[in-house]
Amino acid sequence: MNWEAILAPYSQVVEELKVKLKGMRAQYEYESRHSPIEFVTARVKPVSSIMEKAEKKGIPLDEIEQNLQDIAGVRVVCQFVDDIYTVVEMIRSRNDLTIVEEKDYIAREKRSGYRSYHMIIEYPVETIRGMKIVLAEVQIRTLAMNFWAINEHSLNYKYEGAIPDDIKIRLQRAAEAAFKLDEEMSKIKSEVREAQRVFHRK
Amino acid sequence: MNWEAILAPYSQVVEELKVKLKGMRAQYEYESRHSPIEFVTARVKPVSSIMEKAEKKGIPLDEIEQNLQDIAGVRVVCQFVDDIYTVVEMIRSRNDLTIVEEKDYIAREKRSGYRSYHMIIEYPVETIRGMKIVLAEVQIRTLAMNFWAINEHSLNYKYEGAIPDDIKIRLQRAAEAAFKLDEEMSKIKSEVREAQRVFHRK
Amino acid sequence: MNWEAILAPYSQVVEELKVKLKGMRAQYEYESRHSPIEFVTARVKPVSSIMEKAEKKGIPLDEIEQNLQDIAGVRVVCQFVDDIYTVVEMIRSRNDLTIVEEKDYIAREKRSGYRSYHMIIEYPVETIRGMKIVLAEVQIRTLAMNFWAINEHSLNYKYEGAIPDDIKIRLQRAAEAAFKLDEEMSKIKSEVREAQRVFHRK
Amino acid sequence: MNWEAILAPYSQVVEELKVKLKGMRAQYEYESRHSPIEFVTARVKPVSSIMEKAEKKGIPLDEIEQNLQDIAGVRVVCQFVDDIYTVVEMIRSRNDLTIVEEKDYIAREKRSGYRSYHMIIEYPVETIRGMKIVLAEVQIRTLAMNFWAINEHSLNYKYEGAIPDDIKIRLQRAAEAAFKLDEEMSKIKSEVREAQRVFHRK
Repeated sequence: MNWEAILAPYSQVVEELKVKLKGMRAQYEYESRHSPIEFVTARVKPVSSIMEKAEKKGIPLDEIEQNLQDIAGVRVVCQFVDDIYTVVEMIRSRNDLTIVEEKDYIAREKRSGYRSYHMIIEYPVETIRGMKIVLAEVQIRTLAMNFWAINEHSLNYKYEGAIPDDIKIRLQRAAEAAFKLDEEMSKIKSEVREAQRVFHRK
Repeated sequence: MNWEAILAPYSQVVEELKVKLKGMRAQYEYESRHSPIEFVTARVKPVSSIMEKAEKKGIPLDEIEQNLQDIAGVRVVCQFVDDIYTVVEMIRSRNDLTIVEEKDYIAREKRSGYRSYHMIIEYPVETIRGMKIVLAEVQIRTLAMNFWAINEHSLNYKYEGAIPDDIKIRLQRAAEAAFKLDEEMSKIKSEVREAQRVFHRK
Repeated sequence: MNWEAILAPYSQVVEELKVKLKGMRAQYEYESRHSPIEFVTARVKPVSSIMEKAEKKGIPLDEIEQNLQDIAGVRVVCQFVDDIYTVVEMIRSRNDLTIVEEKDYIAREKRSGYRSYHMIIEYPVETIRGMKIVLAEVQIRTLAMNFWAINEHSLNYKYEGAIPDDIKIRLQRAAEAAFKLDEEMSKIKSEVREAQRVFHRK
Repeated sequence: MNWEAILAPYSQVVEELKVKLKGMRAQYEYESRHSPIEFVTARVKPVSSIMEKAEKKGIPLDEIEQNLQDIAGVRVVCQFVDDIYTVVEMIRSRNDLTIVEEKDYIAREKRSGYRSYHMIIEYPVETIRGMKIVLAEVQIRTLAMNFWAINEHSLNYKYEGAIPDDIKIRLQRAAEAAFKLDEEMSKIKSEVREAQRVFHRK
C-alpha cells in the first residue's frame, strides 16, 4: 500500500486547518485583542497507530477512512477555559466544514482526569483526483489540560491502557493541580485580557 | 488606518492558497508523477504600492477592495509551458473559489515581451468577523518566463514605466532567449516527465 | 534610522539559535529519548520596546547594542523542572557561543513569583559586513512557569510595573498553582520519561 | 541501522546552512541592495541514494561519512553569473566553516553541458553527543543552469548514466539556450541591479 498517497488528503486537511486557525489568532493580534487561540498543533496519525487501532476495533483496512475519525487531528490550545467555548463557536460558524459530532469532556471529565472539548468534522478538500470529504478531529483545551494530557497519553501507551494504581493516583493529583491552575487563571482572566488589549506582545 | 487589520483577510487568502497549491505538488510527488507545479510564491501587495496604484487609477481608499484585483497575489511557476494549462485546469475545477476573469499572455504576449497566464478569482475566506469574499490574482508561468518577468518588473519600476529604448531592446533579446529555452525544454518534456516518474526525490 | 538593517544581525542570531535548539529536540526524538526541550520560541525586541527601555535606563541610542542584553531573545520551554538544568548544561557545553552571565530565578524566585533560568550569551554571527558578536538572552522555564510569566508580563505592562495589590495577590495564587503543578509532574517524571522512550510520536 | 539518528547531524547542518544563507539574502534586502542569492534549497541525500553510491564506489557502510561528500547538500541559486562568484567569496570569508575543495564547472563546463560552482566544506555542528565535524557540498548556479541541471539529473538517473544520443543532443541544445539566456541577462545586469536598489521587491 502507498500510504503516503492514501494519507495525502489527510495531510492536506491538517495543513489547511492549521493555516486557517493560526490565521484567526493573527487576526486577533492585528486588532490588539486577546486571542482565544494560544497555539495550534496538528498531525496525521502515524501508519503504525492507524493499523493498531484498526486491528483492535476489527475494522478492515478498506473501511478505515469511514471508521477512524482521528486520522487527521488538530489541537487548539487556549489560555483560559472560557476561550475554549469561544473557539467552539468560531468553528461552528464556519462555512468550509460541517460538524458531525461534539463531546464536552470539560463539563464532564473522563474518569482518568482527562479534560478537553472534541469536535468531529467533515472537511471537503481538493485533491489532484478531485474533491474529497475527509473526517477530522479537533481537540480544544487549555495549556494546563494539554500539559496533563500529553503526559497521560504516553503513560497510557506504555502500560497499554492499564496504568498501575499508584501511578494513576499520582496522575490524578497532577490533574487536580492542572485544574487548580486553570481555576486560578480564570480569576485573573478579565484583567489579563484587558492587559493584552493594551500590550500586544509578539 | 490599521492596515494590518484591513489586509488580514488578504494575508489569510494568500496563506491558504499557498498551502492548497503546494499540497497539489506534494500529491503528485507521493504518486511519483511529474508535478505541473514547480513552486509557489505569494504576497500581499505592500501598502505603499496599494496607495500608489489607487492614486494613479483615481480609486478612493474605501473602494480599493472592489477595484484592486491583485492585493492578494499568488504565483505558480512551472517547468514546461504545457504545465501552465494543466494548472489552469486544476484551478478551474476547484470548488473553493470562483474564477472572475482569465488573461492568456502566453498565446498573446504583451508588447514588452511579457508572458504569463493570469486568473482573477473570488475566494471566500473565514475571518474573525465572519465570511468575506476576497479578490485574488493568480499568475502562472514557466521558470524562464518568471526569470524574465522579475527583471522587467524592477526595471519598469525604476524607469516609472518608461524604460529607455536601448535597455528595452536588450530586454527583448533576453525575452527571446527565455522563449527559446522554453521551446528547447518542450522538446524534451516527455522524456523528462517519464524520467521523473522513475526518479523521484527533492 | 534603518531599524531593519540595524536589527538584521539580531534576527539572524534568533533564527540560528532557534534552528540549533529545535535541532537538539529532533535528535532526542530520533533516538526515542525524552527531550529536555519541549518547544522553542524566539523574537527580536520590537523597536518601540527597545526605545522605551533605552530611554528609561538613560542609554543613548548608539550604545544600545552594548547595553541592552535582550534585543535577541530565545525561550526554551521544558516539561519538567529538572529538564531546565539539562538544557543549561547543553548550552554551557556548546562551542559556538560564550556565556556572559547566568541568573537562576528558580532556586531563588523573584518577589512577584517569577521563576525562570536566564543566560546572557555572546554569539558570533556572520553578516554581509563580516563577523559580528551579538548579545542574546536565553530564558529557560517549564510550561507552568511560562504560562504564568506571559500573563504576569502583560499585566505588568498594562499597569506600568505597578500592579494593584488585589491583582498581585491573585497572581501569586496562580503562581502557587503553577508551582504545585510542576511539583506534581516532577513526581511522575521518571515514569513519563520512561514511557516516552517506549512511545514516540508527534 | 537507525538512519534517522545517523543522519541527524547532516539534517542539522543542512538546516543551519539554509538559515545562514537565507539570512544573507534578507540582509541585502533590508539595505535595498541587489542580493547575489536568489534562493536557497537544501537536502540530506536519501538513504537509498547513499547506499547505491556507496556500493558503486565500493565504500563500506562504516566509512560513508568520511567518503561521501554530498550527504548534506545545499544549493544556492543566483540571478546572474557574476553573483555566483560573489557568493563564493562570501562563503570563503566565513569563520564558521572550512573549505576543503572547490570545483569551477562554469569556467570549465562538464562534457554533458553541466555548469555550476561546487564547494566542499567542513562544518562543525553541535549535537546531543557533542561537537561533530561534518562534510557538506554547496552548489552555486544561476537560475538557467539550475533549470537545465535538474532536468539532466532526472534523465541521467532514468538511463543510468547512459542517456541515448538523440536525447543527449536535445539536452545540449537546451544547455545552449540556458547559456544564451545567462549571457543576455548579463548584458542588463548592471541596469537590473541598479533598479533593484530603487525598487526593493518582496
